[in-house]
Amino acid sequence: MEIQFSNLAQSMKPSQIRNKIFDNPEMISFAAGKPDSNFFPTEEINSSAAIAFSKYGDNTLQYSDTKGFKDLRKMIVKQRMGKAGVNVTPDDITLISGAQQGIEFSAKLFINEGDAILCENPSYTGALSAFEAYNPQFIGVEMDEDGMVMEKAEEMLKKYTNIKMIYTIPNFQNPTGVTLSRNRRKKMAELASKYKVPIIEDDPYGDIIFNNNRHPSIKSFDDQGWVIYLGSFSKVFAPGLRLGWVCASESILKKYTLAKQNSDLQNNSLTEQFTFEFMKNYNLQKHIVNISNEYKLRRDIMLTSLKKYFPKEVKITSPEGGFFIWVELKTEIDTESLLYEAAEKQKVVFVPGKSFFTTEGNNNYIRLSYSSVNREEITEGIKRLGELITSYY
Amino acid sequence: MEIQFSNLAQSMKPSQIRNKIFDNPEMISFAAGKPDSNFFPTEEINSSAAIAFSKYGDNTLQYSDTKGFKDLRKMIVKQRMGKAGVNVTPDDITLISGAQQGIEFSAKLFINEGDAILCENPSYTGALSAFEAYNPQFIGVEMDEDGMVMEKAEEMLKKYTNIKMIYTIPNFQNPTGVTLSRNRRKKMAELASKYKVPIIEDDPYGDIIFNNNRHPSIKSFDDQGWVIYLGSFSKVFAPGLRLGWVCASESILKKYTLAKQNSDLQNNSLTEQFTFEFMKNYNLQKHIVNISNEYKLRRDIMLTSLKKYFPKEVKITSPEGGFFIWVELKTEIDTESLLYEAAEKQKVVFVPGKSFFTTEGNNNYIRLSYSSVNREEITEGIKRLGELITSYY
Repeated sequence: MEIQFSNLAQSMKPSQIRNKIFDNPEMISFAAGKPDSNFFPTEEINSSAAIAFSKYGDNTLQYSDTKGFKDLRKMIVKQRMGKAGVNVTPDDITLISGAQQGIEFSAKLFINEGDAILCENPSYTGALSAFEAYNPQFIGVEMDEDGMVMEKAEEMLKKYTNIKMIYTIPNFQNPTGVTLSRNRRKKMAELASKYKVPIIEDDPYGDIIFNNNRHPSIKSFDDQGWVIYLGSFSKVFAPGLRLGWVCASESILKKYTLAKQNSDLQNNSLTEQFTFEFMKNYNLQKHIVNISNEYKLRRDIMLTSLKKYFPKEVKITSPEGGFFIWVELKTEIDTESLLYEAAEKQKVVFVPGKSFFTTEGNNNYIRLSYSSVNREEITEGIKRLGELITSYY
Repeated sequence: MEIQFSNLAQSMKPSQIRNKIFDNPEMISFAAGKPDSNFFPTEEINSSAAIAFSKYGDNTLQYSDTKGFKDLRKMIVKQRMGKAGVNVTPDDITLISGAQQGIEFSAKLFINEGDAILCENPSYTGALSAFEAYNPQFIGVEMDEDGMVMEKAEEMLKKYTNIKMIYTIPNFQNPTGVTLSRNRRKKMAELASKYKVPIIEDDPYGDIIFNNNRHPSIKSFDDQGWVIYLGSFSKVFAPGLRLGWVCASESILKKYTLAKQNSDLQNNSLTEQFTFEFMKNYNLQKHIVNISNEYKLRRDIMLTSLKKYFPKEVKITSPEGGFFIWVELKTEIDTESLLYEAAEKQKVVFVPGKSFFTTEGNNNYIRLSYSSVNREEITEGIKRLGELITSYY
């Protein structure tokens, strides 16, 4: 059999965060960027499903609107977009199968072969993988403690006129945990409209905040419609339901909705309906505050343990929300080898940083997630990992 | 704002079967190719969801395998693929968001700009729309009462060496209701391997049979792995759940699974789990037989009414399963105008045939669906439509 695949198919790469070694239940895993299952409001979702069945009957199971259940879109406008500082209507929103679907659609809608994508370097590997099929040039921009450096970004936008979109995770970025400062958000929105390049603002972590300070989205500074906001229920509610949304100006949203129709017609009707019922009958915001408090405690314990058990020379970030801490080891250490050593000797796993970069090299980083490990495991896992790493210093 | 979209985005077209006129509840609608909501096993699905929540707990809501819940894939192998005459293992299956997602992935995986797709002419407009983004050449092959004419298909495969995939709906085709004969299925599988062109066998209707005769799938004649089978729960269970599957040989399935991972990571975990519980605790096959019996009655009534109320010269197909009857009016009649006239004067709607064709012209066809209208509405609607059409003869 000599089957001939398309160029897109040939460029596809598997996501590096879905590695078999991470599935071993014996490991203390700092690898998975997933919410803790114990935090899911499973009872309440179960009840909400029962309400949906009794209220909407057979409509829970029938084909429905490609844009998604309007009552849920209203609820997203009211309860979520407002928090991000964005004032829109339900018509400005289309529901999708998690923000991931919006990421993939973005490349499909804006990238021809040879076009470039400007993004943080490092950035979310699952986005880079999805983009990769479209054969783009990646223009990775360096970050500091305030996120993507805007002077560098503008330099690149001037230099590379083939840049067709900017992809950014402004809040508690994956993998670094770093947050884009308010001034830079404003500046980024200005650059988009100056250089006529759309921004994909991927914001799955924005509501998981540790200091009561919800950052205004880049979209909130966007008065000309260049920012496409991707929202998600995965981290604050339940990822298995595959529920996210795109919020964009009319002419752009139309294309996303068309991509949705072509791809899979619509989201799961039942899920849309019971998620609405959950938001109506329970307090999603209170739930988010509760889980954020626990994630904050885990971050604190991880930071404390890192300071205690890791060599002084190791650089670590200090996230104000979200799931991730980013660790820079000395350049001699290859963290892909370190992963297998840590798994075998210490029964601890993490994600090597390499796959998050748009550039070669960068073998000496690791992403640590504190989101799905309990407090004791964090202390114990960081202690064990610290022993191994210390042996290299 | 002068936003610049990709070539893919510029080629995207909206599906013609999602027309606002069809949503008017005053109409008797022969337009929607959807199952009757009254047939959904809503109570049993509700119970199965409750079972899933109590059995799998928080796992109903967590990220899960990209290929999909293994127990459900086992069940599909046992209860569905066997009926299609295909002997495979759960590893040969990846779950997707309805067969539509498999259709879109197929173009993504096999079509570069300028490549050709061979398909029935007419064919499912939602597939043509999804393919259209990839800018293919469509090679439509004529059909007779036994489906796609194989001599013509081979002629085209010889002539157009840029054909990179064959798309076919062998059972009770959308829009014609026509079924591919057994011999032609065998022949088509042979052509695929002779010309090294994969077949996308789209089979959403195959189990809705009126004569107790489940046709062996094209895949059942495929000994070299050129056939990609797309299965669906939409017509036999519930379309709002967006649940379908791809069954293909290893090297091909790997690409579909990668496309799934890039697109939306995985299907809805909860839906996969309760669909498995439904198939375990209830009798899906019995449900399918029951609804097929009712669809058969509706087909009978529609055929009888068509004979009674339509001019003798009108050609109609007589489907042995599925949802659709295809009507050929005299060439002077433009069914797009007729639709608006029928809606306004007779409060009846249908889908004009034009959007199903890969070639221009063909203005004189209509697709009638009997699947979501009750028996009285069928008689009344066909009577009204017959009056209007008769006035043109």
